[in-house]
Amino acid sequence: MGRTSDAREKILSAGRSLIELRGYSALGVAEICKTAGVPKGSFYYFFESKEALALAVIDEHWARQERDWTRVLREGDEEPLVRLRRLFDETEAMQRAGQQSCGTVAGCMFGNLSLEMSNRTEAVRARLQEIFEAQVDMVAAVVSAALERGEVTVADTREAARSVVAQVEGQVLFAKLYNNASQLGVLWANCLALLGAQAPRTPQGALAAL
Amino acid sequence: MGRTSDAREKILSAGRSLIELRGYSALGVAEICKTAGVPKGSFYYFFESKEALALAVIDEHWARQERDWTRVLREGDEEPLVRLRRLFDETEAMQRAGQQSCGTVAGCMFGNLSLEMSNRTEAVRARLQEIFEAQVDMVAAVVSAALERGEVTVADTREAARSVVAQVEGQVLFAKLYNNASQLGVLWANCLALLGAQAPRTPQGALAAL
Repeated sequence: MGRTSDAREKILSAGRSLIELRGYSALGVAEICKTAGVPKGSFYYFFESKEALALAVIDEHWARQERDWTRVLREGDEEPLVRLRRLFDETEAMQRAGQQSCGTVAGCMFGNLSLEMSNRTEAVRARLQEIFEAQVDMVAAVVSAALERGEVTVADTREAARSVVAQVEGQVLFAKLYNNASQLGVLWANCLALLGAQAPRTPQGALAAL
Repeated sequence: MGRTSDAREKILSAGRSLIELRGYSALGVAEICKTAGVPKGSFYYFFESKEALALAVIDEHWARQERDWTRVLREGDEEPLVRLRRLFDETEAMQRAGQQSCGTVAGCMFGNLSLEMSNRTEAVRARLQEIFEAQVDMVAAVVSAALERGEVTVADTREAARSVVAQVEGQVLFAKLYNNASQLGVLWANCLALLGAQAPRTPQGALAAL
């Protein structure tokens, strides 16, 4: 094993799993290398510091999540609010899958790191801010589409989207604390309330079940 | 300096400040003792472990916050929703004061520790669950009073209260991430939306300003 791209991938993967399970501060470079099965020299060949690894883990996680959010929220046949609902359903399903694979609800990596690190390293704070701004933009585009259809009542589309994302973070915090992904079942009804919306009707004309 | 109650207080106080600034994992007992100005032997005389100190810090912080919440939310001359609004105003004022004294918005200690530690130590998880249950109970009592007056529209008082608390945690996360307590200005309008409420009228009959 050595300075191969394979080693970088192993370090990234170990860093991602360990940060998800135990946060950033609790980890040392030695433990990350041990989990990755690479010598410590490899670590510093690929990453300047533990913080540089954290930034790479954040970027990789967001690249994946951004693809997921784009797929779920993209304009298509479905009504805007139905797309938002799908986002919540997928969020709950993902937390549930994580719990089944590692025993506990891991929560949102970006929320976890915001509370653990944002007041300690400016580079991480800036990166996390960019990610949440991007999330708010994506939700705002859907809220805006719903507003054009007269399905929501919001004074400021972007602020409303921010409140929806904040509500998700707050409920994911509870899901992690109670180790219970079902906590996220309330996201849909709360999102409708925050947006001053009614549940959208299904194509059959029946109200989509809450 | 030695095994006096004064030393215990100093350790607790150092632990509280350091946990608030940097979280739990980033701290070592040696650093806590150095900040407190007590020898390491004193630490283990009063606390079995760093986790035991964290639990004591959590308990002390909650004792103080519970008194504050009780004062703000207690039944009195003011309408239920006005009391809830006061809770948000005080939350914002406290985050702002913390920012002025230490340079950054520290967020909610219970939220911070929920995301950092709840999936790693069961004792901390259980204690934090109890605290959030108590918070939800206190908010639920106010929501219930508002429901009796026909001022809110909620199907489940306790679930609605939980959503209000989750929204606070989500917005406090953003306040910490953006180092901006003004983020919390939206709590009141969002709370009204989550509770299906109108802004209560002031004694003069004018709508309380959002």
